[in-house]
This record gives sequence, C-alpha cells and structure tokens, in this order.
Amino acid sequence: MSEGSGAPVARIKMLVMDVDGTLTDGRVYIGANGESFKAFDVKDGMGIASLLPEMGVLPVVITGRKSSALECRCAELGVAELHQGVTDKLSALGAVVDRHRISYSEIAYIGDDVNDLPCMEAVSREGGVVGCPADAVSEVLAIADYTCARNGGRGAVREFVEWLHQRK
Amino acid sequence: MSEGSGAPVARIKMLVMDVDGTLTDGRVYIGANGESFKAFDVKDGMGIASLLPEMGVLPVVITGRKSSALECRCAELGVAELHQGVTDKLSALGAVVDRHRISYSEIAYIGDDVNDLPCMEAVSREGGVVGCPADAVSEVLAIADYTCARNGGRGAVREFVEWLHQRK
Amino acid sequence: MSEGSGAPVARIKMLVMDVDGTLTDGRVYIGANGESFKAFDVKDGMGIASLLPEMGVLPVVITGRKSSALECRCAELGVAELHQGVTDKLSALGAVVDRHRISYSEIAYIGDDVNDLPCMEAVSREGGVVGCPADAVSEVLAIADYTCARNGGRGAVREFVEWLHQRK
Amino acid sequence: MSEGSGAPVARIKMLVMDVDGTLTDGRVYIGANGESFKAFDVKDGMGIASLLPEMGVLPVVITGRKSSALECRCAELGVAELHQGVTDKLSALGAVVDRHRISYSEIAYIGDDVNDLPCMEAVSREGGVVGCPADAVSEVLAIADYTCARNGGRGAVREFVEWLHQRK
Repeated sequence: MSEGSGAPVARIKMLVMDVDGTLTDGRVYIGANGESFKAFDVKDGMGIASLLPEMGVLPVVITGRKSSALECRCAELGVAELHQGVTDKLSALGAVVDRHRISYSEIAYIGDDVNDLPCMEAVSREGGVVGCPADAVSEVLAIADYTCARNGGRGAVREFVEWLHQRK
Repeated sequence: MSEGSGAPVARIKMLVMDVDGTLTDGRVYIGANGESFKAFDVKDGMGIASLLPEMGVLPVVITGRKSSALECRCAELGVAELHQGVTDKLSALGAVVDRHRISYSEIAYIGDDVNDLPCMEAVSREGGVVGCPADAVSEVLAIADYTCARNGGRGAVREFVEWLHQRK
Repeated sequence: MSEGSGAPVARIKMLVMDVDGTLTDGRVYIGANGESFKAFDVKDGMGIASLLPEMGVLPVVITGRKSSALECRCAELGVAELHQGVTDKLSALGAVVDRHRISYSEIAYIGDDVNDLPCMEAVSREGGVVGCPADAVSEVLAIADYTCARNGGRGAVREFVEWLHQRK
Repeated sequence: MSEGSGAPVARIKMLVMDVDGTLTDGRVYIGANGESFKAFDVKDGMGIASLLPEMGVLPVVITGRKSSALECRCAELGVAELHQGVTDKLSALGAVVDRHRISYSEIAYIGDDVNDLPCMEAVSREGGVVGCPADAVSEVLAIADYTCARNGGRGAVREFVEWLHQRK
C-alpha cells in the first residue's frame, strides 16, 4: 500500500516471516487441554508456495512461539527452514544468514510486533527489504519499506510477495 | 453488486464452486496433529441446498486442497460432485463437462484466486457466467460477470445464487 | 437500531430464537471427522441468562440444524426448550405455543434467514414482536419490528433483549 | 483512544483483567462434547508477559466463566492469580486486595460488561484506573478512564497496558 524508500528488491534471495500477527491474525485458539489452533490464510499460502519458487526466493520462518500446527503448515507450504520458540530473533536470523552464506541485503523480512524490530532494523540497515501487515504495531509501521493494505493472516504476506514479485 | 456484460443466465445447468476463499473466508484452522477446520457459512448452505435444486442447477465443487471437512460439508449440502486435490482445475472442469454432456455456456463458475482463472476464462469465453466474492484477487475481479458485495465465506455464494435465480 | 411499527412489548412472555446467523455469525466450523464447532457470544449469553428471567420471559430455541454443541450452550444459558433439526419452524412454534397455552401476541421472535419468515409473519400478524440481526437477509429485514445495530453472533440477541427490557 | 479524568497511573501495582470480551472477542467456540475454545490475541500476550513485569505490575484475572483453556493461557502469560467461575467479582477483588495488602487506588481494571461494573465503580471511586475495550457495553464505556481504540480480544489489553506504561 504505502511505499517507503526504494529498497533494492532485485537481489532478494530469502523471505523471512514472522508467524503470529503476520501469517495469522494474531489469534491463538486454545482448548481444554491446552491444545491450540492457528488460522492460516490460503491466499498467503498460494503466494509462498507458488510465487516464491518462481522468483528463486527461499521461504524461512522465525517465531517466538512453538506449535505443531505451525510445523504442519510450513511443511505444506515448502518452507525451507522453521525456527520456533526463538527468544532472540536477531541471533536466529544471524545463524540463518551465515549458514546460507548470504548477506542481510539479500533478505526480505515481514513481521508485525516489537520482537521483530531488531531483525527489521538489521535487515533495513544493511540494505534488505522490510515489510509489515497494516495492523502492525506503530514501531514496526515506522520502519517498514512496504506497509501492506491487508492485515496479518488476511493476505498481508501474499501482498508483500506480490510487491516483491513486481519489482524483481 | 457490480454487473459486467450481460451473460445469459437462463441456460445455466451447473454451478461450479471453488472452496477456500469462496465457500470459506480463506482461513484454514490448523491444530497440533495437523487436523484442520474450515468455517462454512450457513447462508451459503441455504442457497446451495434450497435455491439450486429449485432452479434445476447442479452444484459441483472443484478445489486444489483436500480435506475430510469439505467432504462432510458437501454431503450435507447435496453437492453432486466433489473434486479435491486438483492441481489443474481446467482439466477437471473439462472432464465434468464431458461426463455431463453439457457445454461451458451452461456453466456458472465462482472462484476467488489465480488458480481459478483458467476455468473462469474458459467459461467466460464460451458464454457461461462467472462470479467472484468481493475479496477476490484483482485478476479474478477483472474477469467476473458478477462481483458479489459479500466476501468469500460470508455469503458470496448465496448472493451469486440469488443473482442467478433472479435472472433465470 | 431501527424501529418499525410500535408492537406491544409489555405482554411478551417468551423469546423464540433462531441459532445460525442469529445466536452465531453463521459460521459452522467443520473438522476432519465432520465434528463441528459454533461460536457463541458471551454478551448474548449474559442477556439470555440474566435479563430474561428478570423480565419473566422464557427463552426458547428453534433451529433447522442439529448439533450437540448447541445442546451444551442451551443448557448453560437455561434455555427452556430446544427444538433442533426442525424443517417446518412454523409447526414447531405452533406446538410450543399450544403447550404453553400462550398466544403469538405474547411471543418475541428473532431470526435472520428465509426459513424464519413463516414464524416471523405469524408472530407479526398476531401482534407479537419480531427482531433480526443487522446482517439478516432482505426479506427478514423488511418484516422486523426491530433491526439490531449488531450482527448475528456479535451481540444482536443481547441488543434485542435490552430493547425489549427497556419497553417492558 | 479516549481519555477521561486524569487518574494517577504512577502508583498502579496490579492489573485486574476480565476474560470474555476483554482478553477475547467474546466468542466461545463450543464443540460436540461441550469442549470449548477461546481465541486469545498474541499482541495482548506480549503486553502482559513483557511490559507488565518491566513496570512492576502484577497481572490478575477474575472471570465469571470457567475453562481449562483459560488456565493454559494464564500459565503461559505468567498471570499471578486466576479466579474463575466467580459470580460476585467485587468480593473476589476484595479478597485479592486484602491478601496482597494493597488498596483499590493501586489497581488498574479492564472489563467490558455489566458484571464488571461493581469492580470498576469500586476501583474508580477509590482512585484506581479503569479501562475498557472499544466494544464494551455502554454502562462500562461511561465509567472508563481510558476507552481503547481496539476491541476486546483484538489488542485492547495491549493498548491499555501501553497507555499505563506511557504514564508510569
């Protein structure tokens, strides 16, 4: 929807995604025995599973929470790496970057809350691209190169992928 | 809501429906063991189970995903044919058309995403009728004869069926 | 929200409620084995369980569908009679009216779809009170004495009960 | 969003929260065997689990309903005390206040419905701070020091916590 400074999309090789509030609308459905459900968006899935491979961009997920629901969804979408229960997302991102021998400037990152800020700042500072859903917190909205018109879990990731696709 | 070129509704004999984003709002609820839920709309159901038989229109479902949840819902609504896990929807539609010895001009099709486009283009080109929910992707909105005021999973199919009913 | 002709609320002794689209937002969550969930609204519950007894109004539920989820919810709310899987709601209502030796003029009815119309017409014709959620179908909106500002499953029943309460 | 009289936030030592309609959007998902799910918001969780400890504010939950889903969520968020199935919230609050040897003026309370009113009135009268989601009932909206821009279960608690944080 709203575009910030013209970050160079052409060299992006990896899309790193947050989960709750980004790939979902932030709701966690909790039942009697603590079992939980998350609601993923099929339009997001189409973007991740179809558009990213076509663009040669690797999908990676880094999240602070942990759930087998997410493992199922990531397997279905062909997510290359899933890092769950991460308290320090920036360290996790650093390890991913090292292992894949890429630089932060080749990363696109989408997240929605304050625990995504360190990653977004690092990616942004090094010349990568950062995006966020329309309903991200204000600190995240302030730093994003691209703010989606759509909310988390309602097609924001699809929209960000299409935006990357158009500029690639 | 918005009507395009006056496609002839009178000869429609079959309504072909997409599922995720059309009969649902696109959310897939995934739990710990990968079990999934979909949310169907009761108003849609009333249109499919009551209005279509009265109009002599056969309900058919073609979808890229696969779930027993959908099988349950289709059985309940009297859906004549359910094709799941379809990667090439146009081939699946072609087989249905052949088996029922009808033509594309006798088909109404409702879908919301790019994997519905080949079917929608074929149906549209041959004189059938294509509709979509208000929140369909832009490529689909561009080709629809009828764009519903309602979103997928929130009564779009009921609205499309009523629109067909009024013109039949 | 919008009020029609001044139906006499003072004599109301029974509130008859539809379920899907009225006590819920019309979504039926269906899982792998056909098990289903419905989402009820806690604010509606507070109106039914607290305000109705205070007003001396008996809560009754008549619905076309059938689910044990609904049985649980009705037990929790102190619903006096639950009639499920009803194809002809008017007959079911007639039986309730006879058994309780009340007249249609002593009934308030809230529903949202065409299968509620026969009951709503009967209640309306005999001097009872009919209400509906904001997102009811147009035929229902046209006949309602009171159209709620709130949608089904999002507080419409609570709002209708408060409206009755204020005029009683 | 909208601020009332300037209640003194600096001395707040405890945040007392309602659940349904406040930490959730008021929906209770009920299945076949009466098992139920609630949908909690991850952004709320981040506020409770991260911001409150930093502020030295103790999170407490008092609710009229009872569910093991809630127990799971509260354990996850580090809620200090969970009181469920409470019919008289004011008495429950009084016991909490006594046990912790604090006064009502050191309490911030957030709730959304009429059964929260006695607590909100007591806290407000004694110089504490009361907040509510945007979609609270009118009696609650009328008494709140801070009315959130966000609805219950959609970040209202996070917003209230941030508002407290900014003024502390």
